Amino acid sequence: MKNEKKPQIPLVWQAEPSKAVSDALSPHNRAVVDEFARLIKAGARETVIKAVRRLPPPVMVELFVHLPLKRARKLTSWLDKPQLRVIAELNPSFRAALLDDVAVQRLVDVLDGFEPEEAADALDDLPEELAEQALPRLREREAIESLRSYGEESAGSIMSRKFVAVPLDWTVGQVAAEIRSNAEAIEKLYAVNVVDSEQRPVGYLRLRDLLLSPPETPVRAVMQTDFVAVGPDTDQEAVAQLADRYELSVVPVVDGDGRLIGRITPKQLRRVLREEAEEDLNLMSGLPADSRPDQSIRRIVRGRIPWLLVGLAGASLSAAVVGAFEEQLAQAAILASFIPIVMSMAGNAGIQAATVAVQGLTSGTVTFADLGWRLAKELAAAFVNGAIAAAVLIVLVLVVAQFIVIESPVILALTAGLALLSVILVAVTVGATIPILLERVGIDPAMATGVFITTGNDILSVALFFLLMMSFYL
Amino acid sequence: MKNEKKPQIPLVWQAEPSKAVSDALSPHNRAVVDEFARLIKAGARETVIKAVRRLPPPVMVELFVHLPLKRARKLTSWLDKPQLRVIAELNPSFRAALLDDVAVQRLVDVLDGFEPEEAADALDDLPEELAEQALPRLREREAIESLRSYGEESAGSIMSRKFVAVPLDWTVGQVAAEIRSNAEAIEKLYAVNVVDSEQRPVGYLRLRDLLLSPPETPVRAVMQTDFVAVGPDTDQEAVAQLADRYELSVVPVVDGDGRLIGRITPKQLRRVLREEAEEDLNLMSGLPADSRPDQSIRRIVRGRIPWLLVGLAGASLSAAVVGAFEEQLAQAAILASFIPIVMSMAGNAGIQAATVAVQGLTSGTVTFADLGWRLAKELAAAFVNGAIAAAVLIVLVLVVAQFIVIESPVILALTAGLALLSVILVAVTVGATIPILLERVGIDPAMATGVFITTGNDILSVALFFLLMMSFYL
Repeated sequence: MKNEKKPQIPLVWQAEPSKAVSDALSPHNRAVVDEFARLIKAGARETVIKAVRRLPPPVMVELFVHLPLKRARKLTSWLDKPQLRVIAELNPSFRAALLDDVAVQRLVDVLDGFEPEEAADALDDLPEELAEQALPRLREREAIESLRSYGEESAGSIMSRKFVAVPLDWTVGQVAAEIRSNAEAIEKLYAVNVVDSEQRPVGYLRLRDLLLSPPETPVRAVMQTDFVAVGPDTDQEAVAQLADRYELSVVPVVDGDGRLIGRITPKQLRRVLREEAEEDLNLMSGLPADSRPDQSIRRIVRGRIPWLLVGLAGASLSAAVVGAFEEQLAQAAILASFIPIVMSMAGNAGIQAATVAVQGLTSGTVTFADLGWRLAKELAAAFVNGAIAAAVLIVLVLVVAQFIVIESPVILALTAGLALLSVILVAVTVGATIPILLERVGIDPAMATGVFITTGNDILSVALFFLLMMSFYL
Repeated sequence: MKNEKKPQIPLVWQAEPSKAVSDALSPHNRAVVDEFARLIKAGARETVIKAVRRLPPPVMVELFVHLPLKRARKLTSWLDKPQLRVIAELNPSFRAALLDDVAVQRLVDVLDGFEPEEAADALDDLPEELAEQALPRLREREAIESLRSYGEESAGSIMSRKFVAVPLDWTVGQVAAEIRSNAEAIEKLYAVNVVDSEQRPVGYLRLRDLLLSPPETPVRAVMQTDFVAVGPDTDQEAVAQLADRYELSVVPVVDGDGRLIGRITPKQLRRVLREEAEEDLNLMSGLPADSRPDQSIRRIVRGRIPWLLVGLAGASLSAAVVGAFEEQLAQAAILASFIPIVMSMAGNAGIQAATVAVQGLTSGTVTFADLGWRLAKELAAAFVNGAIAAAVLIVLVLVVAQFIVIESPVILALTAGLALLSVILVAVTVGATIPILLERVGIDPAMATGVFITTGNDILSVALFFLLMMSFYL
């Protein structure tokens, strides 16, 4: 303590309840973060711990998010167990970055404060070795291992095994008493499940029904019966879609015999939504589904090289196509200038069409049955766009021909324009159909949309361009 | 009724509560959908309406989603007002597709069954003209217009103006009585806001606190005080991030004087998450943020042509670069074969790096402060990947040289390899830094990542390739 500089500003987070707090930090709070960062860097452990203890949990989350990662890691190593609980609230990628080089015992301290499904999640995001070391020492080891035994991204692996279920023949008063007597254990209460004698769900009680009904009301009379449940093997994406469609906050999970075994909480549902969106984006960009900015260099290399090599194989085919027209190129080297144009336009037009198709497949607005109709519409739009782009290109070539010597510039311009239009039509056809066809045969369309469609369109566009040039220009 | 064929199968949805319902329809339910589709096509209005009336709302949603769009539209035109309510539960894109050519009066019937914020949303997704015609006839016109008066994608435009707020000096018993007496009006109850005499929020009561506390407990004693609120102008993405960070199910909205004016419901929060993910994907693919598969050809054209023309402008610069080396190409036409390779590898490597950066910026794991460190890591990985790809390319060129005549194949192979490595390093630098720099100056990094980075990398890669070839090969 002796060597600690006195804090420059009082470490008080400004959060007047009557003020709107937006995502941006207020200048005051920015200064608080900077002061914390300075004190952490200076090693002023006791001052920092004392100050952090005064912060309400959401403010601690805010502090963690805004501290530089290095300082946040240091803070993690200093905090008391109860305060470490807030780490469960952090964004999973950020949390993994924070924990991935922490000491094993500290990791155990952190995870022991989590709900089992949160701990299972967090372990999934950590390096295998670290997870293996921490797991046997965890307090809720058994529950966590059971969650981890379900397939990755399955309902079973993300469910919470804590829920409230009451028998069908109870009254509202009995339910309220039961909840009251278990108040300690029930941290988050969203709904009360009603089950039959076999522990199979038959309905649920909304909290408002409990509040609004006289105690002697039979559960049977006020429970909601229109509900859905999922099996533990249901894919998490399907769970999120179901929740969305039925406007569920919580999704019950039942085993093969229909017995209630868990529930998926709103927090987990939101996490799934975010994760699935990230996965789609990653797959479309030729990245592994789970790639994150904080990965080690080795993981970055391993994640990206497969798609780069697939891309290289495809590009070599494009190169072979160009090579096949070497004679024509020697005759008119200017043709090479058009290679970047047809390739990049095919790429852009193809990705536009593919992205719309992928999003439509995800949201359910595009189905296999629509294929023909969608393609017709896409092609009509591509024809207009292609014609506009072709017109621009024709003018461009004619203008350039005023300044440099080009043989038969008008024919070249018209042929290039025709080539551009054809290339865009082909690229849009590929982009609009491939995702739908892949979904049909059970492959994630997002994966294909990235490197495959782009590479395919590269090859097609170069071939088409040279064939048209040979037919009309040379 | 006379001409109606008798239904082939009973129109009963199979949803035993003890069975897990996954996203896939059971064969039985598939048959029910088909039967509905057939009856709708046959114009069997009364049979259909009678059968639909028996379905619980979630099953109606399911039916709508699985019917072909044309049949779902017809069904929309037939249903009674109370049944039309389920349309609010449909995915927004699908809902817009369903409603965008409905008669105005029918649209009014549909929207009158929605909550005002749902109606405002739905209107936003519909063609301007149709929305303008329907708006004046809506029952809750005033509330809807007030929501629409806030900026697009602002907290104000997505909030619900219905909420429960109680004074600070009440007891739990008074709150429960108040809720009971308003039971009809309160459809969804998530939390009870506690406000001071100025209507400014000072805390909130969780439903479990209400259930668990004796009636005479003062609200003050059990309310939660750690909460955040947003202003009506806060961007919806920031609202969703806040909700995530603080694990909020509902986010209160306060006006400039700190008075409670609304709340953002869990349903809206999930919608925002989905919408923002779609927007990012669209922007990265050179599409307008709100593009949808069901748009008219005119809107498709208008949405896509700007980016195609930007791409064309960029590609013309690449073409100019190639043109500048026409002499070298005439000398060695084989060089043209490498254009597709360097362009496509630059594109793939650049997009991989950019996507990781964009995702990191969204989740908060990447910040401007990390720029140097991140770039170092990206470059280290790019060096390894580039070296691997270069090695493959070198071998490839040497193998090809066994079959066709190439001048100084070893120098060509080595120079091409060096070019590929350099191009990948440059592309990754561009991809990893541009999104972070754009975010810093307040531009959505997703937007830039698509056409800009790809086009920029095309130009750089072609220029770099020819410069290296001139230096070492020619």
